[in-house]
Amino acid sequence: MAIRIGIYGYGNLGRGIECAISQNPDLSLVAVFTRRDPSSLVIGTEGVPVVSANDILSYIGKIDVLILCGGSATDLPVQTPALAKHFCVIDSFDTHAKIPAHFAAVDASAREGGNVAMISVGWDPGMFSLNRLLAASILPDGRDYTFWGKGVSQGHSDAIRRISGVLDAKQYTIPKEDALSAVRSGTCPSLSTREKHLRECFVVAEDGADLSRIEREIKEMPNYFADYDTIVHFISLDELRRDHSGIPHGGFVIRTGKTGKDLEHSHIIEYSLKLDSNPEFTASVIVAYARALARMAREGLVGCKTVFDVPPAYLSPKSYEELLASLL
Amino acid sequence: MAIRIGIYGYGNLGRGIECAISQNPDLSLVAVFTRRDPSSLVIGTEGVPVVSANDILSYIGKIDVLILCGGSATDLPVQTPALAKHFCVIDSFDTHAKIPAHFAAVDASAREGGNVAMISVGWDPGMFSLNRLLAASILPDGRDYTFWGKGVSQGHSDAIRRISGVLDAKQYTIPKEDALSAVRSGTCPSLSTREKHLRECFVVAEDGADLSRIEREIKEMPNYFADYDTIVHFISLDELRRDHSGIPHGGFVIRTGKTGKDLEHSHIIEYSLKLDSNPEFTASVIVAYARALARMAREGLVGCKTVFDVPPAYLSPKSYEELLASLL
Repeated sequence: MAIRIGIYGYGNLGRGIECAISQNPDLSLVAVFTRRDPSSLVIGTEGVPVVSANDILSYIGKIDVLILCGGSATDLPVQTPALAKHFCVIDSFDTHAKIPAHFAAVDASAREGGNVAMISVGWDPGMFSLNRLLAASILPDGRDYTFWGKGVSQGHSDAIRRISGVLDAKQYTIPKEDALSAVRSGTCPSLSTREKHLRECFVVAEDGADLSRIEREIKEMPNYFADYDTIVHFISLDELRRDHSGIPHGGFVIRTGKTGKDLEHSHIIEYSLKLDSNPEFTASVIVAYARALARMAREGLVGCKTVFDVPPAYLSPKSYEELLASLL
Repeated sequence: MAIRIGIYGYGNLGRGIECAISQNPDLSLVAVFTRRDPSSLVIGTEGVPVVSANDILSYIGKIDVLILCGGSATDLPVQTPALAKHFCVIDSFDTHAKIPAHFAAVDASAREGGNVAMISVGWDPGMFSLNRLLAASILPDGRDYTFWGKGVSQGHSDAIRRISGVLDAKQYTIPKEDALSAVRSGTCPSLSTREKHLRECFVVAEDGADLSRIEREIKEMPNYFADYDTIVHFISLDELRRDHSGIPHGGFVIRTGKTGKDLEHSHIIEYSLKLDSNPEFTASVIVAYARALARMAREGLVGCKTVFDVPPAYLSPKSYEELLASLL
């Protein structure tokens, strides 16, 4: 029997989950839950009901894994613990500094409900975290580096849009080639924020807006841009729509380390992603972990889990025998 | 208390294990077991006994994990099942086609002894297998590619040395840049053996040997070279020792796949290794998995396991709380 999935929240990530489910025959979509008026929402899968989030508890026992597709700032800190009492939930909570607190809240709540839950699944946190852990475990005498991009940062794009005179904007985070080369050389360089990434902004301004003032406000914005080399391009709304409508992303996790009697041998472990669609790839990771979570639930596990807890075989629809014969 | 490790076999891999143990304070080396005369063997760690392989059973109860460092052709198919009856063993069995049979033999034997065992740990099989599994689970509509090198193939070097008139030889397997580029383009090319890798050979011939005959015998050797573009260089013994004494290796696991309503978005997942010392890196992977195996043994697991079974957190000496706070 297929694993029954519910989607809670239908933005970019929710739509990505829906697509990913359609690529995995062992998973089936039971319902999409929304805080909007359900009748206002048309989803991509025929025959699947759109249900008000208020009615979610009527789905207890009808869903194996509920995938939470809200945002990390305000949605997930409330939704994941609340829903973990009643369902096996999985989220993509990505505020790194607040993961331990989120974990504790979800763990307590999942245990109270006798459920298993998983947080912070995606690519960072997620696959990048897994690769940082693996590489650090293999090469204890080493150093690791994470680079992001080239890709769209929604948070930075939003920050530009809040500037007076800006109609729309897209911001790309770009790893600097010199920094990547220095890391790959194995010399374990210490790199400043400015040395690692470049920020490139495509901005649509209102007619008659003071472009030099907007550019200055972007480049001097604390936390977001002040510590980076930032390039600002002013373009038309047509150009923005034509050339910058995608949501690509990606990045690199690199660890360099030494082995040998006198640590005379260097090694480089590199994991990289190049993604046309950040939300669809994130969704694809989550859906594989939803499969694993359903299995952990069948085994009777309770409490909060992360990618660090999942035996890799649980992610695959293939039998263990197939994995041994074809992938090991 | 430190995890007590025994090393069984003291060649390149065994020496690499010894070095890796010294880099991990939570592991301690109890003894090195050898089939040679123990008095003939000087190891790198002071105060650790060298013991005859014949006396291994006197170490039952004194070793948490026994790391088997023999070869896959004739040693491990016999040693791993035999020793899994008495110890928690881990090996790097790397004959891909025979993994299911080896797994079955070790599993039966480990269960008989009430032990847990792990086979085929290293980088391929091992980390490459893990990455093939992860990437295939995330991107079901895709294709994966494994490239090896640039690195020394011991098997191919040995094959050249068996040719009449050859004193010594080193063979490098080199991935072809054109093939890597084609794969990274996301077009899912079908690549022949010849298109993926190049073989470069450095050969020391006897004085007066017929070089063109040796070169022809190399290039026409079935299975080893006939299906590849092969370059042969004749060099002096001094040059071989000066320029080709290392054992570097590495490679790439790349999966490209599609997502989206109409599979309109492409993604590339790439994992790569660049290793100065193949045996030392393999040893470093094995030692991290030995830590995990000791934990699985404490939990009472029995039978044969692989990298597909290990929750990633088990590989790290850090506490789960540290992992959540620093690596997720």
